Amino acid sequence: MGEVQVPSDAYWGAQTQRSLGNFDIGRDTFVWGRPMIRALGILKKAAAQANSELDQLPKDVADLIVRAADEVIAGDLDDQFPLVVFQTGSGTQSNMNANEVISNRAIELAGGERGSKKPVHPNDHVNRGQSSNDTFPTAMHIAVALDLVERLLPAVDVLRKTLHDKAITYTDVVMVGRTHLQDATPVRLGQVIGGWVAQLDFAVEGIRFALDGLRELAIGGTAVGTGLNAHPDFGKLAAAKISEETGQDFRQAPDLFAALSAHDALVQASSAQRVLAGALMKIANDVRWYASGPRNGLGELRIPENEPGSSIMPGKVNPTQAEAMTMVATRVFGNDATVGFAGSQGNFQLNVYKPVMAHAVLESSRLLADACLSFDEHCARGIEPDTERIAHNLETNLMLVTALNRHIGYDKAAAIAKKAHKEGTSLREAAIASGDVSGEDFDKWVVPADMTHPSA
Amino acid sequence: MGEVQVPSDAYWGAQTQRSLGNFDIGRDTFVWGRPMIRALGILKKAAAQANSELDQLPKDVADLIVRAADEVIAGDLDDQFPLVVFQTGSGTQSNMNANEVISNRAIELAGGERGSKKPVHPNDHVNRGQSSNDTFPTAMHIAVALDLVERLLPAVDVLRKTLHDKAITYTDVVMVGRTHLQDATPVRLGQVIGGWVAQLDFAVEGIRFALDGLRELAIGGTAVGTGLNAHPDFGKLAAAKISEETGQDFRQAPDLFAALSAHDALVQASSAQRVLAGALMKIANDVRWYASGPRNGLGELRIPENEPGSSIMPGKVNPTQAEAMTMVATRVFGNDATVGFAGSQGNFQLNVYKPVMAHAVLESSRLLADACLSFDEHCARGIEPDTERIAHNLETNLMLVTALNRHIGYDKAAAIAKKAHKEGTSLREAAIASGDVSGEDFDKWVVPADMTHPSA
Amino acid sequence: MGEVQVPSDAYWGAQTQRSLGNFDIGRDTFVWGRPMIRALGILKKAAAQANSELDQLPKDVADLIVRAADEVIAGDLDDQFPLVVFQTGSGTQSNMNANEVISNRAIELAGGERGSKKPVHPNDHVNRGQSSNDTFPTAMHIAVALDLVERLLPAVDVLRKTLHDKAITYTDVVMVGRTHLQDATPVRLGQVIGGWVAQLDFAVEGIRFALDGLRELAIGGTAVGTGLNAHPDFGKLAAAKISEETGQDFRQAPDLFAALSAHDALVQASSAQRVLAGALMKIANDVRWYASGPRNGLGELRIPENEPGSSIMPGKVNPTQAEAMTMVATRVFGNDATVGFAGSQGNFQLNVYKPVMAHAVLESSRLLADACLSFDEHCARGIEPDTERIAHNLETNLMLVTALNRHIGYDKAAAIAKKAHKEGTSLREAAIASGDVSGEDFDKWVVPADMTHPSA
Amino acid sequence: MGEVQVPSDAYWGAQTQRSLGNFDIGRDTFVWGRPMIRALGILKKAAAQANSELDQLPKDVADLIVRAADEVIAGDLDDQFPLVVFQTGSGTQSNMNANEVISNRAIELAGGERGSKKPVHPNDHVNRGQSSNDTFPTAMHIAVALDLVERLLPAVDVLRKTLHDKAITYTDVVMVGRTHLQDATPVRLGQVIGGWVAQLDFAVEGIRFALDGLRELAIGGTAVGTGLNAHPDFGKLAAAKISEETGQDFRQAPDLFAALSAHDALVQASSAQRVLAGALMKIANDVRWYASGPRNGLGELRIPENEPGSSIMPGKVNPTQAEAMTMVATRVFGNDATVGFAGSQGNFQLNVYKPVMAHAVLESSRLLADACLSFDEHCARGIEPDTERIAHNLETNLMLVTALNRHIGYDKAAAIAKKAHKEGTSLREAAIASGDVSGEDFDKWVVPADMTHPSA
Repeated sequence: MGEVQVPSDAYWGAQTQRSLGNFDIGRDTFVWGRPMIRALGILKKAAAQANSELDQLPKDVADLIVRAADEVIAGDLDDQFPLVVFQTGSGTQSNMNANEVISNRAIELAGGERGSKKPVHPNDHVNRGQSSNDTFPTAMHIAVALDLVERLLPAVDVLRKTLHDKAITYTDVVMVGRTHLQDATPVRLGQVIGGWVAQLDFAVEGIRFALDGLRELAIGGTAVGTGLNAHPDFGKLAAAKISEETGQDFRQAPDLFAALSAHDALVQASSAQRVLAGALMKIANDVRWYASGPRNGLGELRIPENEPGSSIMPGKVNPTQAEAMTMVATRVFGNDATVGFAGSQGNFQLNVYKPVMAHAVLESSRLLADACLSFDEHCARGIEPDTERIAHNLETNLMLVTALNRHIGYDKAAAIAKKAHKEGTSLREAAIASGDVSGEDFDKWVVPADMTHPSA
Repeated sequence: MGEVQVPSDAYWGAQTQRSLGNFDIGRDTFVWGRPMIRALGILKKAAAQANSELDQLPKDVADLIVRAADEVIAGDLDDQFPLVVFQTGSGTQSNMNANEVISNRAIELAGGERGSKKPVHPNDHVNRGQSSNDTFPTAMHIAVALDLVERLLPAVDVLRKTLHDKAITYTDVVMVGRTHLQDATPVRLGQVIGGWVAQLDFAVEGIRFALDGLRELAIGGTAVGTGLNAHPDFGKLAAAKISEETGQDFRQAPDLFAALSAHDALVQASSAQRVLAGALMKIANDVRWYASGPRNGLGELRIPENEPGSSIMPGKVNPTQAEAMTMVATRVFGNDATVGFAGSQGNFQLNVYKPVMAHAVLESSRLLADACLSFDEHCARGIEPDTERIAHNLETNLMLVTALNRHIGYDKAAAIAKKAHKEGTSLREAAIASGDVSGEDFDKWVVPADMTHPSA
Repeated sequence: MGEVQVPSDAYWGAQTQRSLGNFDIGRDTFVWGRPMIRALGILKKAAAQANSELDQLPKDVADLIVRAADEVIAGDLDDQFPLVVFQTGSGTQSNMNANEVISNRAIELAGGERGSKKPVHPNDHVNRGQSSNDTFPTAMHIAVALDLVERLLPAVDVLRKTLHDKAITYTDVVMVGRTHLQDATPVRLGQVIGGWVAQLDFAVEGIRFALDGLRELAIGGTAVGTGLNAHPDFGKLAAAKISEETGQDFRQAPDLFAALSAHDALVQASSAQRVLAGALMKIANDVRWYASGPRNGLGELRIPENEPGSSIMPGKVNPTQAEAMTMVATRVFGNDATVGFAGSQGNFQLNVYKPVMAHAVLESSRLLADACLSFDEHCARGIEPDTERIAHNLETNLMLVTALNRHIGYDKAAAIAKKAHKEGTSLREAAIASGDVSGEDFDKWVVPADMTHPSA
Repeated sequence: MGEVQVPSDAYWGAQTQRSLGNFDIGRDTFVWGRPMIRALGILKKAAAQANSELDQLPKDVADLIVRAADEVIAGDLDDQFPLVVFQTGSGTQSNMNANEVISNRAIELAGGERGSKKPVHPNDHVNRGQSSNDTFPTAMHIAVALDLVERLLPAVDVLRKTLHDKAITYTDVVMVGRTHLQDATPVRLGQVIGGWVAQLDFAVEGIRFALDGLRELAIGGTAVGTGLNAHPDFGKLAAAKISEETGQDFRQAPDLFAALSAHDALVQASSAQRVLAGALMKIANDVRWYASGPRNGLGELRIPENEPGSSIMPGKVNPTQAEAMTMVATRVFGNDATVGFAGSQGNFQLNVYKPVMAHAVLESSRLLADACLSFDEHCARGIEPDTERIAHNLETNLMLVTALNRHIGYDKAAAIAKKAHKEGTSLREAAIASGDVSGEDFDKWVVPADMTHPSA
């Protein structure tokens, strides 16, 4: 395959360098960020520990690997991971990148010469008992699981808390309900926002379920799932070490053949992200519609004015956080399409779409988290009802007529609503004019707040 | 493969029967409708004519095939095509279904005995010079092209005409513009609807472009694209006969290997349907939002009240046609995902996702056509502006301030808009109070109709 | 809205008839099948029972409703549900269809006159304490949950069992492993098939999780989630009655506002179906590639020859069941795209894409179930290894060299593999020629069966 | 909205700075690259020229803007465009970013003080006659059109040329055809590769068609499509200037309302990219399958060995370029899902998903281009047939029997093929044994090269 020149200041070696030359696709943009690099570090550390404990590695070599891997985990060597996502579909080159960097850094720590492969060999030591085919999916699971737990879920929780507080604060704000975009019977603003919170809770539950699958690791399967060249206990022990390192309950996957040739746990995680994205889209859409106006929209909510809205229309303010959020949602939907497609394309003992899948799920995790925090800080916290507008709308709402059903029946109630609509009068006027309801009865029966059944 | 019993009253034969037994997937729902059956008839007729002209078939046999195929084209034998979509991925069994039915019906016309294969053999005569691998994609293209031309485009045109007329009728209705859901500078209702028409026109252009690709037929490629066992001129001549029969300009595909192993023309057609679906979604969403209310929405358009809207809220009317339309749009998006995915999965000399692709594109064509006609008849034709509401909204619109930019600059204009917004006054009041604009100037400068540049 | 004529022999009433006239979209194909009609029957029965128990309905009226609903459940009135999916987005018309049919049938049972609304009124009695906005999503959940439990999961289990048995049967068949489509270290056929089983198990787990969400019902929310006009205990009690009727543990949703305005549980169920579809695609692809040939493919598995494969190539046999399966998978992916999109489009107190979502998920359930059974019966059960071919391939496999790593190191092993590859010799020959390995060592170290770690 | 501090060395101003603070979503990754920044420069330059010609800007101010814009076009100020994609959905902030940077750089060129807005005001001069609502979609179209023409199409053409040459070079290599993954009648390698070329040609045609739509610009529509505050000839003239600058035939869109509120031309372009991605997936899949082996796959093509394939299996070489290509394809499919979804979500006079749409289409353009070049250089150019393997496979191919159809009929031919298959003999042996064909006839009739109809 010819010679290859590695820059003298690089910790990486020939295989990484070769990949740099062979895969110039999406450079700069489609590189691995912290989550994946850190996960590779965690994995290599755990593997060295497990191998050492199982007498597959000399203790001093293992210790050197652990020290170098700790630097990878800490982020000190991030610039040594230059490879792009669109490489070999098994992630082999990124696995070798980790092996090479850790080996060279370990050699350096031992006072050796980079590239000498002594005393720490990238394949025989750092990659001991491993194959890219099991390490890369293991690192994918670690990276995604940690990102969901440490980044995405906390970010969702921040927004959830804000909304939950708003739901409580505004439990007494009774407003027009809307179904089919048409006026409907009243609801409380607290109930509306509570519905948003319930959607977030449902989405979070789905992510938590997906985490279960992600915590099952391919490690120990080596090249094709059989565990060839690995100590029989290696996978289980490495998973235990990874759990120690991360504080999460990782374990070896029950079937290593499936763990190499399919990444259904990633597909499931992506789906769970899509549910969240869909929920956030609903929420953001509601917010911007309720805040539409200021004069000629619904205008029932006020949101923060963060920036001038228009380069041509003076004084215009736009629901820009909702726009950023819904754009993120469409992106997450697209990423999910990528992941689902790629996940279906495994053959025999390997699925070779690993990098694009891991990257897309991590991207969605990051975008959703960022968007939740941004939306929370710059929009959700500042949501306030325009109580005057709300009260005015509520008062004119013809669907309050529904309260009359039980007293005068659906048909007579319908006639009153239609009459009021046609003649542009209030419901009360039309009701009295109908002869079916007295003013007193109307005032007793049609009480918007009572119609919202706060207990429901 | 064992014996197989064919019902005595069936025109189909053993291969069709065998498929019935082997593929019980989506029965009743996922059967071929008129477009595909007719296309198979057209194809088999043209093939017989071409073979006869090229001396590959005795004239009397060809004539019998043509007569039987004419019955298939006419729809007289639709109940003889019982196979489901989810069969062999080349559509072989539906091709054989056509061969068997036409052969047996031709035998019957000749006074022979069904199943005797004499004087008209399903393979040697009806399928002469053909393979499922070229006939089925040929039939797919015929079916889709005809359905787009005869069903979908005319339906879109009906809706387009209605909207175009409305755009002209309402050219003088000046209303609040809305960007980001927020009040913006004024537009004319005619301009708004004209934008919808422009979207439809763009979508139609895309469909017409896709028709170009669909008019290229795989016929003549036989099993793998080489045309083995077909007369060298057969494909071209058959395409000419198909053009005669249909009045459309079909021709043999320039590369028959691509024509068997990929169906990118179908993918392209599906994409064009998706553009149309997206446009219809925008239109239907606009309609229902403009018609939201009756009291607490935008309420600027009125749409027909077709049915009671609620089983519980008396007098409620909902934009149900817009709902049906947008549901169809989501379905078309899904079908497009199916088609794109399936289209990418060819291997070597064949793509074996033909039936599912053809079915999905035909389904989208039908649903879009039905939805356009339904929306046209039950909604679009009845769209009317609520001129009172529109005028009231326009009057209170703060974004009219934009007209002041050129006279007093963006910054002072912004201050006036904000003041009016904050204090709840009219823009005119705030403008005068600012000292930057006199009442006379305001009335001269801020003329909503002039701001809509009807020439633009 | 004008008069409307209902056919004299119909049980349905004016609202159903009106919908028939207003929505001619996808007629015949996009109608509700058994699962949804049955679910509406179950719901209406349970509602009548709950209302009766809560003194919201006279016992005799409730009994009549129960009797009529039982007929709906049994399927006796399926032809009375003619409405299409693309109707109002709340499913109002199908809810009213159920109300009308049950009311009229109940009236008939009571000896009354159809259409008289006496003694059983469609709105006041059958729809008592309900709105389409809570009943339709309730029926959706019932229909989908039952279909998943009664149709899809059992069908998957049939296939799973067949594969599981095959995995055990063929645990001793050692064959070439393949990664990146390239020869790799050996695996056992039992391990390969076991990996497929593990994928199915994972997918089933996801469906079971989704069932949890589906078992939460919107009932009791009525029009906007507040439960207006329903007895406060109605929703809970109705859910209990539904559980009794179905034997499944349904319960009222914890947040009824979310339950009406979002259908994230359906999106989640659809995602779970997509995971299954992806797994089945991997399995079917593996099967057809392993069975490729007969002479010029991999040829390591034999599958049943169910039908002639070609209308032009004599003696050809194709993996048609795998093709049907993978086509179904692409369709399910498309349905999932529809469901995800539609699910994100709720506004305020209602999502008006209910029918298209329910229909797509039910379609996927049915197609996946049918395809599993078809694939099982006509393909999976007949899968057999071609042991001769397998043994021959294994023997020539250069990747057996991996077993030498631990003895002579990665680099020397690589040199041997490359030499054998280049010179076209056996690995053993090249190994001996290298001088690094004796024939005896080779035979001792390179034992394919040992390399598969059956314990892994 | 409070004060905001702009770094002293920044050319951007308060609005850009504010956006930096408000939108911390996907920072670093989701920033605008060259194509979009350059397009903003081109647009602002053309706008200044047009305004100057129409006496809407003093000539000296226009000249300053042109000089500063030229620096933006050249890439000298790329680091002054720090905003992320997930901002306001109209791209207002990136439009203001361009206005601010160009204004400040122009001021500097004039010897003025940055931030003074004199003599070049960001809104009144640089944004003269414009709104974000028309400039941003204009810039999107410019950016995408140029990227397709200058980057993507040339890259595809490089690969196309390589493949076209291969098709010619290998026109005499006759090999086994494969349909349904099963052996079929022979084809020439030149025909196979020619089919790939035909797919690329079809995809390119689709992209060229999409370019037509992209060349229609929203410029002149300003805030809502009416062109308020722009000179009536501004849009047309600006488009002409853009054409001059770029050498491409841009023109003002025929309907500016549609041009602001929908981006169907982007959706169409994305679809065309998806067709290309699907074609590339088919090609890359074929390549890796043909190259599968080295011993236990099809092994009919050889591809370059670019890097060690495995960290555990010595001597393994994998089709990594095909893997990178197909991963890119799945990403492009996902981007297309994003674009289609976002494109359907416009409301009234604006679609506020502009940035995410533009970004996704540009990303696909770049990834497809990079992948084509990488695949070309590191794989396609090195594709070679393994003529020995090909010849051996061809010889044993039972589907050569198809050549006998015309001589002895389908049924007898089938019997011969089955006999040979069952008994493991050659087709010739089975044919002679059948008594229907003599050895001489067989040799005369069954000539693989003749079966490929090179004229077809």
